[in-house]
Amino acid sequence: MIIVMAANVPQASVDRVVGEIEKMGCKAHLSRGTFRTVIGAVGEEGSIDQHHLSTLDGVEKVMPIMTPYKLASREFHEEDSVVQIGGGSVRRQLVGGKHALSIAGPCTVENHDMLWRIARHVKEGGATVLRGGAFKPRTSPYSFQGLGETALKWLRECGDELGMPICTEIMDTRQVEAVNKYADLFQIGARNMQNFDLLREVGKTQKPVLLKRGLAATVKDWLLSAEYVLSQGNRGVILCERGIKTFEDSVRYTLDITSIPVVRKLSHIPIIIDPSHAAGKRDYVCALATAGIAAGAHGTLIEVHYNPSEAQCDGPQALLPEMFREVMGQLRAIAKIMDKQFPA
Amino acid sequence: MIIVMAANVPQASVDRVVGEIEKMGCKAHLSRGTFRTVIGAVGEEGSIDQHHLSTLDGVEKVMPIMTPYKLASREFHEEDSVVQIGGGSVRRQLVGGKHALSIAGPCTVENHDMLWRIARHVKEGGATVLRGGAFKPRTSPYSFQGLGETALKWLRECGDELGMPICTEIMDTRQVEAVNKYADLFQIGARNMQNFDLLREVGKTQKPVLLKRGLAATVKDWLLSAEYVLSQGNRGVILCERGIKTFEDSVRYTLDITSIPVVRKLSHIPIIIDPSHAAGKRDYVCALATAGIAAGAHGTLIEVHYNPSEAQCDGPQALLPEMFREVMGQLRAIAKIMDKQFPA
Amino acid sequence: MIIVMAANVPQASVDRVVGEIEKMGCKAHLSRGTFRTVIGAVGEEGSIDQHHLSTLDGVEKVMPIMTPYKLASREFHEEDSVVQIGGGSVRRQLVGGKHALSIAGPCTVENHDMLWRIARHVKEGGATVLRGGAFKPRTSPYSFQGLGETALKWLRECGDELGMPICTEIMDTRQVEAVNKYADLFQIGARNMQNFDLLREVGKTQKPVLLKRGLAATVKDWLLSAEYVLSQGNRGVILCERGIKTFEDSVRYTLDITSIPVVRKLSHIPIIIDPSHAAGKRDYVCALATAGIAAGAHGTLIEVHYNPSEAQCDGPQALLPEMFREVMGQLRAIAKIMDKQFPA
Amino acid sequence: MIIVMAANVPQASVDRVVGEIEKMGCKAHLSRGTFRTVIGAVGEEGSIDQHHLSTLDGVEKVMPIMTPYKLASREFHEEDSVVQIGGGSVRRQLVGGKHALSIAGPCTVENHDMLWRIARHVKEGGATVLRGGAFKPRTSPYSFQGLGETALKWLRECGDELGMPICTEIMDTRQVEAVNKYADLFQIGARNMQNFDLLREVGKTQKPVLLKRGLAATVKDWLLSAEYVLSQGNRGVILCERGIKTFEDSVRYTLDITSIPVVRKLSHIPIIIDPSHAAGKRDYVCALATAGIAAGAHGTLIEVHYNPSEAQCDGPQALLPEMFREVMGQLRAIAKIMDKQFPA
Repeated sequence: MIIVMAANVPQASVDRVVGEIEKMGCKAHLSRGTFRTVIGAVGEEGSIDQHHLSTLDGVEKVMPIMTPYKLASREFHEEDSVVQIGGGSVRRQLVGGKHALSIAGPCTVENHDMLWRIARHVKEGGATVLRGGAFKPRTSPYSFQGLGETALKWLRECGDELGMPICTEIMDTRQVEAVNKYADLFQIGARNMQNFDLLREVGKTQKPVLLKRGLAATVKDWLLSAEYVLSQGNRGVILCERGIKTFEDSVRYTLDITSIPVVRKLSHIPIIIDPSHAAGKRDYVCALATAGIAAGAHGTLIEVHYNPSEAQCDGPQALLPEMFREVMGQLRAIAKIMDKQFPA
Repeated sequence: MIIVMAANVPQASVDRVVGEIEKMGCKAHLSRGTFRTVIGAVGEEGSIDQHHLSTLDGVEKVMPIMTPYKLASREFHEEDSVVQIGGGSVRRQLVGGKHALSIAGPCTVENHDMLWRIARHVKEGGATVLRGGAFKPRTSPYSFQGLGETALKWLRECGDELGMPICTEIMDTRQVEAVNKYADLFQIGARNMQNFDLLREVGKTQKPVLLKRGLAATVKDWLLSAEYVLSQGNRGVILCERGIKTFEDSVRYTLDITSIPVVRKLSHIPIIIDPSHAAGKRDYVCALATAGIAAGAHGTLIEVHYNPSEAQCDGPQALLPEMFREVMGQLRAIAKIMDKQFPA
Repeated sequence: MIIVMAANVPQASVDRVVGEIEKMGCKAHLSRGTFRTVIGAVGEEGSIDQHHLSTLDGVEKVMPIMTPYKLASREFHEEDSVVQIGGGSVRRQLVGGKHALSIAGPCTVENHDMLWRIARHVKEGGATVLRGGAFKPRTSPYSFQGLGETALKWLRECGDELGMPICTEIMDTRQVEAVNKYADLFQIGARNMQNFDLLREVGKTQKPVLLKRGLAATVKDWLLSAEYVLSQGNRGVILCERGIKTFEDSVRYTLDITSIPVVRKLSHIPIIIDPSHAAGKRDYVCALATAGIAAGAHGTLIEVHYNPSEAQCDGPQALLPEMFREVMGQLRAIAKIMDKQFPA
Repeated sequence: MIIVMAANVPQASVDRVVGEIEKMGCKAHLSRGTFRTVIGAVGEEGSIDQHHLSTLDGVEKVMPIMTPYKLASREFHEEDSVVQIGGGSVRRQLVGGKHALSIAGPCTVENHDMLWRIARHVKEGGATVLRGGAFKPRTSPYSFQGLGETALKWLRECGDELGMPICTEIMDTRQVEAVNKYADLFQIGARNMQNFDLLREVGKTQKPVLLKRGLAATVKDWLLSAEYVLSQGNRGVILCERGIKTFEDSVRYTLDITSIPVVRKLSHIPIIIDPSHAAGKRDYVCALATAGIAAGAHGTLIEVHYNPSEAQCDGPQALLPEMFREVMGQLRAIAKIMDKQFPA
């Protein structure tokens, strides 16, 4: 931790800061410059209360040296983590390291028949995890809010039959029990990335968690949210980049491809991309998917619908089944160049 | 609703759109331009499924004419709403129209003694509602998370004694019952502005709700979140602008002063500002507070601490009691110019 | 300057950094932490090549302690600067310290008659500097681009007759000579804030320069652009906050009121606001103007038109003459509370 | 053009708008809804003055249907444009359609020897156009500003000898003549994307122009800037995505990969990417380069230096020659999958 004092502060202020650092069990190193004194606090950075130091008289700013997350950092865990999804009644899938993952399905489970049709399509197209929404976060209270537990049951049944693990979004702590009963992979949506109570509750289960990035979150914020889950003992976190808000208005969100090599440098956690929600338009989904794999992502989450104009939610972004099959071919080819592999 | 067709689409696509609009109980008006056909859907815009139309073949874009919120709009309720806080054991306070409100207190309730000291200071300084955090949303799982129900009890006791209504933040649907028991005003924090389950649950109570704006939310998103609360029958919404994310790095967030006249034009709901969380630094809090009132806000939420370097949370932004008293003097003078009044 | 080494770098890397710092005439202070070594470079920070240090092997990041601008900083010049505009044939105006300034006029000079009508209106309303566009930066090559030197002549004539200094925008280095001949105050628009050649050229004149903030610039970027002008020997810089890009779509730009106290803390340079271009809509201009003065700004730049629906540019944001007169009354009253004064 | 009237406006306001539309030579179509009247203006949208309509009494908003650029739009020119660079003394290079381009070189020309060494390295590595900075835009007036015409001469000599076209940045209208004399491809930097005088001047030459995207510009703004060049008769525009400002602070800028499929849908102009300036760090350059080509870009602009710690500018982002050679291998393989080809 580096503490920069304001220009021309009295010696007493410097002494107070040094004293507080020593109380925290660390050592203080002083550098007196022409204009300012800079104090380095040496020791376990976790034991230093940055907040407290920043409120002391004469302190201009406090700059941490270490990252604020630990379990999520590559310094803590040098090798790529490989997370396991499913097992038991459904085929076990791996993601991370050289293992690439394809999650696909409809945005929302609308009825029994459409779920089955789409599930078969995405399986044929190459997906190995089935996703579908049961609880839907909608910006308007007047929009369709999802079928709830009924949808969960259909997803489970469908996954068991086709041998595919199931992924679905969870929005509220009161849903943890039900979703845990039916799904193989919790999805935390972008708007809940900092719903800290929810992060803690899924952290207490043993199911893996797909953590989407918040619409205006930095990679650091995101890894801190992952830390919430990890700190409860659940090591099955998978990050999902799904676009951030920018000034560009021709798409819904801007897929932040750069976050892929950044996460891979700072953390051991696998990272996949969701090009469907980022683009918001079918036309752009394939280009974003190939770009993501070429940037080093560990997989994709893609929405598919056989009849998008009937979809109750996000139809304009759903790929048709044949488009999905085609892009999976390109993804396999690019993954090979990037030293990764989708399951056969 | 305006539907813009792509260039050179076949007549069948236009006919399909017209047919769908008529199925929704509306009328379609065609304008054939040199390059494109534009279709106006006339009728109750709420009955038109924008999403569905946008998925039809040949549709380039769909532009709504009406706002997506209703109960929150000034078209629905032309007069300024005046919201009542407290009553019964504590003095009733009003906000909205010509009534300005001053909420103040510590960021977090740290212990019994500090709460009482600060409460007395803010009351003397001119605040009429006391705020204090019991449940704290923290980006790091390793930071102090608040004292929970113990803090709620102290707040209640303190409010009853001093005759001030109590405001505190709620983070999770499981806390609604406890907070409803003790507090007079629910606060929904910026990170929960789109926690739709939570909005619905506080909407089912009869207590007023202070709804902070999300860090990257537009005014439209914000009013849609207000609509969630209103749609449950709770008409006591108060908006609180607390800064948005921008590229400026000398402060924590950028207080969006413009949102004040914008909200006041689009909606009847009262709007106050929180300059403390926006600035993140004591030095800037007063200038933002005066600016907010001069822009037409209905009040302020300001953090105060008698010894900021001991505060467990957000000490650098807390005003000292004498600074608070002084700025309240300026705020009263400016409010008068803007035709509003703080209670004596 | 603080140099943070990567974890576990060899001693040779540390030695190399220390050697380079000493070559620059500074001293290196080492702090060896548990995981990292941090090196403080002590001496004239201006003499340290941050860039060079950041490219050395083993360096993780380099953090400057001092601000990168000097002449613009309050550390260099502790008192508020007071800038003089006009003098000679027109009345001298002051801005900075306790002196508030009101610049007003049409967006663009469209013809001789409209300029005179508006100039008389704004003078009666309380403005003391007349502005009008001769060269217009337009995002589309097909929009009206201004009347050029003809407009400059009319502005000069009008200013001389009414005794008001003249302010006009300059867009290209080739216009410096002509604008310098006619105007009393150069305006550098937001899109040219980092047109470094232009900044240098106006810096070589002795006329004051109104420097608007770039649409996505930080206060630091802005002060660095001011430094370009100051470094040429021209000390007459006035900053003008005119709104930054944000996600809010109900206005054109978000007036960053916070930049006012921030600039006033970091710098001695006067700062005014342009609420007209920020809002883009007449309805919001007055609320932003009063907010800016309440936040401590040294004045306003407001567009006025007697018949906005005939204006060739930015009509929707122009105040009518009577609105301008009214808001000037509010601004005078608020300025007094904030210890500033507009000229009588 | 769609004109939305405010709720409950008098008939006279509607009549006035209709009258004005007819004066512009267009037809007005009225749709009277329950709450509002919406007017469609049918005819050449270019002949409608959107600005004027938006200032009329009772008009709430005006929504254009057509894009504001023409020559840059794919509707105007359906096939991909293929732009030619060089020819004559240097090998002609193509970009656009199936032709991919690799531009590489040092950030700045520092001296004769380093330019030659790097030029040979990038040629061996697979680049076919050489870039190097002679005039440098620097945020601080105290940073190195480039060698000017001396650097231009060395670039020309080097390009002629190695048979590579030369690309260099131009910052001011006064440099057009000199740069036109030496270079084969003008580069307009991000900070000058809206320097409209400069766009016009390079538009008057017959040399191709590499137009970088502004740091906060939308794709629409960017295409409008391209339109400035095209409207002067110069059809050799190449777009270069180089990252936009976002809240992510682990890299300098966020490379907006989505802009690639968006530009390719809206326009016929070739688009390449500059991963070096976006990332700001060598570690991320290769992942961004591969992602860009996988998203459909027509090439890359990459900075290379054999000894980055000696570079006078942007050393941390320069690839070493062997890294450049390697990534060119991956780029060739991915380009093939995306149906494009780099020259052998």
